[in-house]
Amino acid sequence: MAAVKRVAFLGLGIMGNPMAANIARGGFELTVWNRTRERADEFASAHERVTVADTPAEAASNADAVISMVPDTPEVEEVLFAAADGMSDGGLAVDMSTIAPTASRSIGERLAERGIRFLDAPVTGSRPKAEDGTLTIMVGGDEADFERVRPVFESMGRLVLHVGPSGHGEMIKLINNTLSAINAAALAEALATGQAAGADTDKLRQVVAAGSGGSAMLELKAQVMLDGDFEPLFKLEHMLKDVRHCIAEAEALGLELRVAKLVESIYAEAAANGLAERDFAAVADVIGGNSP
Amino acid sequence: MAAVKRVAFLGLGIMGNPMAANIARGGFELTVWNRTRERADEFASAHERVTVADTPAEAASNADAVISMVPDTPEVEEVLFAAADGMSDGGLAVDMSTIAPTASRSIGERLAERGIRFLDAPVTGSRPKAEDGTLTIMVGGDEADFERVRPVFESMGRLVLHVGPSGHGEMIKLINNTLSAINAAALAEALATGQAAGADTDKLRQVVAAGSGGSAMLELKAQVMLDGDFEPLFKLEHMLKDVRHCIAEAEALGLELRVAKLVESIYAEAAANGLAERDFAAVADVIGGNSP
Repeated sequence: MAAVKRVAFLGLGIMGNPMAANIARGGFELTVWNRTRERADEFASAHERVTVADTPAEAASNADAVISMVPDTPEVEEVLFAAADGMSDGGLAVDMSTIAPTASRSIGERLAERGIRFLDAPVTGSRPKAEDGTLTIMVGGDEADFERVRPVFESMGRLVLHVGPSGHGEMIKLINNTLSAINAAALAEALATGQAAGADTDKLRQVVAAGSGGSAMLELKAQVMLDGDFEPLFKLEHMLKDVRHCIAEAEALGLELRVAKLVESIYAEAAANGLAERDFAAVADVIGGNSP
Repeated sequence: MAAVKRVAFLGLGIMGNPMAANIARGGFELTVWNRTRERADEFASAHERVTVADTPAEAASNADAVISMVPDTPEVEEVLFAAADGMSDGGLAVDMSTIAPTASRSIGERLAERGIRFLDAPVTGSRPKAEDGTLTIMVGGDEADFERVRPVFESMGRLVLHVGPSGHGEMIKLINNTLSAINAAALAEALATGQAAGADTDKLRQVVAAGSGGSAMLELKAQVMLDGDFEPLFKLEHMLKDVRHCIAEAEALGLELRVAKLVESIYAEAAANGLAERDFAAVADVIGGNSP
């Protein structure tokens, strides 16, 4: 099968908008659909070679591949099954949203019944990386399908990897996010201890960054936690959802994730304390006795 | 007070030996003492400008500063109080061992009663960094005393920081190690989940390293955990000791470290399962239902 040249992009939200923009800049023929039509019109007027569709099916009918980037499982199902009405046999659907691996595999199976091929391709990296085209994209599904879409992925991402069969992109994304959640909670305990001891937190951070306790969370969230500035880059309720999905997937595989489960309860406590819509770094507010 | 030129080094173990070697190479006048005299003789024959002393007091009597690098609190007390007999009023003792901050402060107070000044200066980095002179050295105590010893520290370390008053070097070291212990346990859960899901662990590692879940532990311990090769670089029982010290220090400050406490129980389970003398990465053996 030939490489994908015509792309339908469904969902121009915080992440979808800059991702679709990079596809347009990459020279692909792009048709976009968005629930709120005005955003699609604004997008089309800002980029070349972009068509706006009235429905997911209309967008799909002009495309070699359909990409969805929407909030959660119900929206993925809604837009992709609607798009399927406009797709021909052997068409290719790619979901780049973050949902549970089991939900993703199930969507792939139901699309297959309609003759449509499917990849799960979630991303890591927040909006700045979506804008720069430096996302990490982890793709589950058939390798030949992946190769057909690879140039499109490469217009949006720096590290683009086929990681395994259907659902494995989502699985690896959940594992990454659960590690982030735990490392952030550990960091919050570390900073709380340092502050309580009267330690110089700048020097604490320098030492840890150079040592075995270093982490991406230290680089990304230590200052945010010290400042108590929890303007959301990734909402705490979304992190909590991912940790819960990871625990459930592991349980289905016969594994008990004790550390993840404790950390899930701590994020749940933060959500119950009114921090659900804040950045997940706000978990620091319920760590180490800083609880209100 | 003038910069330190003559150094007494007490304890030529796995870390002490290469650290003292870098002091000798740094051009300082070095007197060494070791419980097993033969090791001190071997050391002296391998390096220039090195004298071997029969007792800590004899070593100290020739030095501007006395450095101890021994296993735990009882040994620190033993060698430094013995060395104090050979030190003049205003002499300077530097403990580079890893012990509890409260124990370290107490040693400093008791040395002060004998007119001896004291710095706690633990290190991070294992033997290869001790050999290369690229340790991280975090120093608690009087800043003027720190400045006097700084050239000696810089012969052993790349990042050398005065972090605060007495005990703060040890406090920051404990916090770093506790972060390492938690991040390693989280990593073990992540790898166990990935393996159970049949994911490609190389690609999982690539994605996490590029993403928000990355950590020093991922770089240092993922392969070790996947190989199940737990040749000790840092023994699990020592990590467990550090986590316990950190929890106790935090409790004394009114903080409950929930994540650290759970992880302490997991490392304790690993120790009880015969893994105390293995590398702390062996915590992976009791994670996620891999327990025997």
